[in-house]
Amino acid sequence: MSKLKGACIFGQSGGPTSVINASASGVIQEALKQDCITEVYGAAHGIRGILEENFYDMSKEDKYELDLLKTTPSSALGSVRYKLADPDVDDTDYKRLLEVFKKYNIRYFFYNGGNDSMDTCNKVSKFMQKAGYECRVMGVPKTIDNDLWATDHCPGYGSAAKYVATSIMEVYLDARVYDTGMVTIFEIMGRNAGWLTAASALASYKGYGPDLIYLPEIPFSMEKFLDEVAEVYNRTGKVLVAFSEGCKDEQGRYIAEMGAELSKDSFGHAQLGGAAAILANAVKQRLNTKVRGIEFSLLQRCASHIGSLTDVNEAYMAGEMAVKYAVEGKTDYMVAFEREEGSEYKCKTKLVKLDEVANTEKKFPLEWINKEGNGVTEDFIKYALPLIQGESAPPKEDGLPRFAKLKKVLAKK
Amino acid sequence: MSKLKGACIFGQSGGPTSVINASASGVIQEALKQDCITEVYGAAHGIRGILEENFYDMSKEDKYELDLLKTTPSSALGSVRYKLADPDVDDTDYKRLLEVFKKYNIRYFFYNGGNDSMDTCNKVSKFMQKAGYECRVMGVPKTIDNDLWATDHCPGYGSAAKYVATSIMEVYLDARVYDTGMVTIFEIMGRNAGWLTAASALASYKGYGPDLIYLPEIPFSMEKFLDEVAEVYNRTGKVLVAFSEGCKDEQGRYIAEMGAELSKDSFGHAQLGGAAAILANAVKQRLNTKVRGIEFSLLQRCASHIGSLTDVNEAYMAGEMAVKYAVEGKTDYMVAFEREEGSEYKCKTKLVKLDEVANTEKKFPLEWINKEGNGVTEDFIKYALPLIQGESAPPKEDGLPRFAKLKKVLAKK
Repeated sequence: MSKLKGACIFGQSGGPTSVINASASGVIQEALKQDCITEVYGAAHGIRGILEENFYDMSKEDKYELDLLKTTPSSALGSVRYKLADPDVDDTDYKRLLEVFKKYNIRYFFYNGGNDSMDTCNKVSKFMQKAGYECRVMGVPKTIDNDLWATDHCPGYGSAAKYVATSIMEVYLDARVYDTGMVTIFEIMGRNAGWLTAASALASYKGYGPDLIYLPEIPFSMEKFLDEVAEVYNRTGKVLVAFSEGCKDEQGRYIAEMGAELSKDSFGHAQLGGAAAILANAVKQRLNTKVRGIEFSLLQRCASHIGSLTDVNEAYMAGEMAVKYAVEGKTDYMVAFEREEGSEYKCKTKLVKLDEVANTEKKFPLEWINKEGNGVTEDFIKYALPLIQGESAPPKEDGLPRFAKLKKVLAKK
Repeated sequence: MSKLKGACIFGQSGGPTSVINASASGVIQEALKQDCITEVYGAAHGIRGILEENFYDMSKEDKYELDLLKTTPSSALGSVRYKLADPDVDDTDYKRLLEVFKKYNIRYFFYNGGNDSMDTCNKVSKFMQKAGYECRVMGVPKTIDNDLWATDHCPGYGSAAKYVATSIMEVYLDARVYDTGMVTIFEIMGRNAGWLTAASALASYKGYGPDLIYLPEIPFSMEKFLDEVAEVYNRTGKVLVAFSEGCKDEQGRYIAEMGAELSKDSFGHAQLGGAAAILANAVKQRLNTKVRGIEFSLLQRCASHIGSLTDVNEAYMAGEMAVKYAVEGKTDYMVAFEREEGSEYKCKTKLVKLDEVANTEKKFPLEWINKEGNGVTEDFIKYALPLIQGESAPPKEDGLPRFAKLKKVLAKK
């Protein structure tokens, strides 16, 4: 079979993680090796960079810097939250994409992101097929939320989970230095799925974790929450709570919405955050003790200084395999992870149709939540523990991280 | 000279750091080696443990666990915030201490903490002298605030500074992924001194740091702050601000206090959260852009997973030297750090009279603050950079930190 010859373009989309650049490194370095790929472009700010013909010639980058991408957090090429219209309603963007693809003879399209990005990827794939333009389209997964469908787990999750568990272990000790009462509430990311908040249970598994864990999969009751905190407090004087920013009450309102009016992002999602302060205040009123609300905020998704080596390697592999699959002739898929059978953890890639993953969320399994709705089971620990193994961190210069420095040479128009 | 023979007791006091246990390790391991020290006691919750005869026999601990203390954050023996009375007004506690010291033949007292703890140490020292009870008293410094008098720097500062600078570098990249406007405000600890907030400038030195830095040494003006943020924002679209929790306005009010009046929600409730949330709200009102307030909270003082090896080694040395000095016959001192002359950084210990350090704060030097009052100079970078060198982290088990596990065998009464 003769291989499809042409340029490739790669884009990053959605909220960054500490390993999304590891996937970029995998895609770019593998693409640069492939003879059939004539040019390797990196889109500035995802799909928008393609629409605006704003992309970089990745062959101009040093190999050393491309390797450093593995430990450089955030989206090195720039990300975007841009929702493509339904092509049946408005195909302007799609026609423009086709125009750009034709102009640069782009025959490979790799798109790295979460649910929304897989939707974008899927729409582009279907449009190109309909237009009869031969182009291999491949989604590369990414999200600390770990909520992509049909994959065992997502690149980005392991490192964020390791950061959350480690930080909670440290604060557990800190919160116990005085023999006076104290309640500490951690607010952890996860819009609709509790995977990352559940990672706090890894700290409990080591003996330094939260007493109570609240996931968005179970409707949140302030009254039940306060009762449960009071029960632990009255018994031990110290309470650690892990709380997902995505928790909603029975009426479907986010806890954060109770305190502040929210700005919406361009997908119409509410901007979350601030729940820790609201809960801390409620606990203070109830127990009249010292309460700390700790919001991990952006820290949890960019802490490459305490990355999971397993996660970094798998993120790289997801990018690398996307290119290999595409060159082999596969298209219209997302690269997904599958655990091999056996007692030892081994992860391999598989392909999942973009249709299947676009806009489908994988929630935290209800059977892994305890019957009180305030903790997770051993099954989750078994699932998550392999994902946080191994240490990854950037090399240091002057005692501080040395991140990748890309030249970002614009492709010739 | 015959050495003073007797037991020693060691206590931890004040807010913990990620390396206060490294000093504990130094004191305990050195004391266990000394023939003239008959027993090594660790006080539970500092001075209170002595008053209540609640202390541990440290000879019962495994060497391996004592070594692990070097990378175990927080105060392993428990801390306390307990202010001893003026002995001329009320000497109850002092008489009780003397009673306990006599009962256990305690002839060495090591106390590890910041300003208040050195005050405690000083008072105990003076009382024992006055009572004619021979006891060597030695203060061991500790504070992430770096505000102890007469020492070049304090154990705990280097690691907290490394954490702050590294985390800000990571968030710098994260905050730049979208090409839309964004303001990020970091709230950093330091009640009256700006040392730790200034550490954010180390991130700027590497090219990934804050545009504006506000220290408590300069009165804070909300109007000036908003103007300065707006100026950077209008020029670049991205602003990073490092802000000390200790900043006060011209009237001496903390920003967090101002907030209670400044920002009421629609129900008339005070806006929740610390200074970061208040400033974020004010910036949002002014610029109508996306604003994130990030409070490092407890995370910044217990992040032993990204410790400075220099700091850990020096913290150990401070403890070790306290014992050596005391055995040599020194008393009534705090162990302090001095930089050796020369281009290469070398740190040695010296002794400072407890009188001199008790309750005296070392503020951030005004000459190291830029003339706009919103940044620091190169002199600070030269000062701080050596303190964050080298990597320290706990060994891992299951991909998570393995902290020291002490047996805490209570001493026989």
